[in-house]
Amino acid sequence: MDDVTLDDLPLAEALRGKTPYGAPQLDVAVRLNTNENPYPPPPELVADVVAATERVARELHRYPDRDAVELRTDLAAYLSGATGVPLTTRNLWAANGSNEVLQQLLQAFGGPGRTALGFEPSYSMHPILASGTRTEWLPAPRRDDFTLDVDVAVAAIRRHDPDVVFVTSPNNPTGCSIPLTDLRTVLDAARGVVVVDEAYAEFSRQPSAVKLLAEFPAKLIVSRTMSKAFAFAGGRLGYLAAAPAVVDALQLVRLPYHLSALTQAAARAALKHGEQTLASVATLVSERDRVVASLRDLGFQPVDSDANFVLFGHFEDAPAAWRSYVDAGVLIRDVGIPGHLRVTIGTPEENDAFLAASKEAV
Amino acid sequence: MDDVTLDDLPLAEALRGKTPYGAPQLDVAVRLNTNENPYPPPPELVADVVAATERVARELHRYPDRDAVELRTDLAAYLSGATGVPLTTRNLWAANGSNEVLQQLLQAFGGPGRTALGFEPSYSMHPILASGTRTEWLPAPRRDDFTLDVDVAVAAIRRHDPDVVFVTSPNNPTGCSIPLTDLRTVLDAARGVVVVDEAYAEFSRQPSAVKLLAEFPAKLIVSRTMSKAFAFAGGRLGYLAAAPAVVDALQLVRLPYHLSALTQAAARAALKHGEQTLASVATLVSERDRVVASLRDLGFQPVDSDANFVLFGHFEDAPAAWRSYVDAGVLIRDVGIPGHLRVTIGTPEENDAFLAASKEAV
Repeated sequence: MDDVTLDDLPLAEALRGKTPYGAPQLDVAVRLNTNENPYPPPPELVADVVAATERVARELHRYPDRDAVELRTDLAAYLSGATGVPLTTRNLWAANGSNEVLQQLLQAFGGPGRTALGFEPSYSMHPILASGTRTEWLPAPRRDDFTLDVDVAVAAIRRHDPDVVFVTSPNNPTGCSIPLTDLRTVLDAARGVVVVDEAYAEFSRQPSAVKLLAEFPAKLIVSRTMSKAFAFAGGRLGYLAAAPAVVDALQLVRLPYHLSALTQAAARAALKHGEQTLASVATLVSERDRVVASLRDLGFQPVDSDANFVLFGHFEDAPAAWRSYVDAGVLIRDVGIPGHLRVTIGTPEENDAFLAASKEAV
Repeated sequence: MDDVTLDDLPLAEALRGKTPYGAPQLDVAVRLNTNENPYPPPPELVADVVAATERVARELHRYPDRDAVELRTDLAAYLSGATGVPLTTRNLWAANGSNEVLQQLLQAFGGPGRTALGFEPSYSMHPILASGTRTEWLPAPRRDDFTLDVDVAVAAIRRHDPDVVFVTSPNNPTGCSIPLTDLRTVLDAARGVVVVDEAYAEFSRQPSAVKLLAEFPAKLIVSRTMSKAFAFAGGRLGYLAAAPAVVDALQLVRLPYHLSALTQAAARAALKHGEQTLASVATLVSERDRVVASLRDLGFQPVDSDANFVLFGHFEDAPAAWRSYVDAGVLIRDVGIPGHLRVTIGTPEENDAFLAASKEAV
């Protein structure tokens, strides 16, 4: 069987020559490459996840709640509290990571013959998910400083009339977020749905797009994740807030029983300890500002960030610089933006190690 | 937001007017409608799932192993043992339920402009997954007794030249399985990939299609699930065996980190207790044969089954009969085959309750 290669298989034309998405998973002392929260879950959270698992494990022979009602109710309570916008179970939807949420959105509102537009550089999974659902991807530009020029954005939307618009705020990998006034202008211009990807919202100085849901109920969808601020990357839980009709649409494309009983129970246990977990956000924000200032002092040009990572340059040869960080025991990310690398904010000690390696890299 | 309806959203044309897939989740005493294993996981398995959760929960702030290497290694060991065919990690792939495995296969080998053929009636998710990936679905018939007529199958494959052929063995919802000689004939006729869906293989008298992998490495893919015999429906773990190149192809379409650390750990713990869990299979097989014989004695026409369920008739009005079972506290499944209903094999007591209700339904 081993002598059969990809070329021997009737692979879909669109996939030929492609390589799998994903950062290198290297065994390096300081891992600052995937925007994880560096603080492990507190013991009380671990204990509650274990207790919840014990409860559901006895019923693992049964399918889970297909609609994840209790989990969506808890997510609604968290997001209502965080944004001040009243939301109910019917406004919330959850899946295995925000990637699955976004894939379902493209299945429902994109697909063959339809288009999705995003402002690049941005989260590189957006065009990959578009390709996976055979939605035509339309890249539109950002300013040279990576902020969103709302006039350019509106002109691109008017010209292309996309079925789906992605706005990432704070934007990954650049860190900038978009003010609500600019977002409102984008929403006014769009005919299709506007997906605001708020994976890093908890780290941002800007209010959440959730505040605009009542104003744009048939257009606006706000996606979120528990992977970053909630320190739950290993649990894989993404979610969104939108009008209940959007949730009805996703019910048409979701795989039945897509969320395991274990995932539902563990995510609920983690949400219960949200206040404690999110306490790390203040530390990370202050560390981020220290890293930005220190990089500037070292002569780098860091991009101002509203997230838990910093894009910085300028390197003559970013891939070579990335390698020199790895050699120094610090794994950061080459996101493919010429002259730039991205570093996740870690613990103070990890950030010190990164800054020490940066001194060598200047 | 509540006054926005599905009609107000720019839903993909292909989804308009559709309803979500899924059996009614009713609170009825005897639930024999989704082919679950009625025996709860043994306490030793629960304890190991809990212990494994405790280990990984401390690292939930980190992304899981994207390639699920340890889990795939354990699955390879199980499937090698069960089939006698040597398999390694590179032959195995896993996802959140076999539905996600099959969706990934259609993303890789189907899609717009391509076709998938299945022999109906069969697992109703196959055409739904085809639709979700915009693969044209080509239904081909079975014999009136629901067995597969291999000459008709080969003729349909020759006529349509599909990119993907689904063969479900044992077939859901009818229970019949396909002998390897017939499967070989189907594989010889097919140009595209042939996906043998073996969700119920552990209950079958026929050998697994895995035995043909070495013979058809560039064509044959065997999908499996831990939801049925393994009593792990709540854990959501589907997998497949194929040539390593097929796994390479799926790496191009899988969502990164699609399997949570909790899922990987819990599935490994469940596999460790496979022998114990699978001991229920013999009981269920003998109960199945008792249910078939009893239904026949009552004047019904059950279809001979190789799985943990039985399709039976004949009803003048199957939906009305289904309702009368619910009224008697027994939830079975109306799978949409005129004159027929499907019952999952439960515990002896549950089967007695079903047979008692059947006496009334004659």
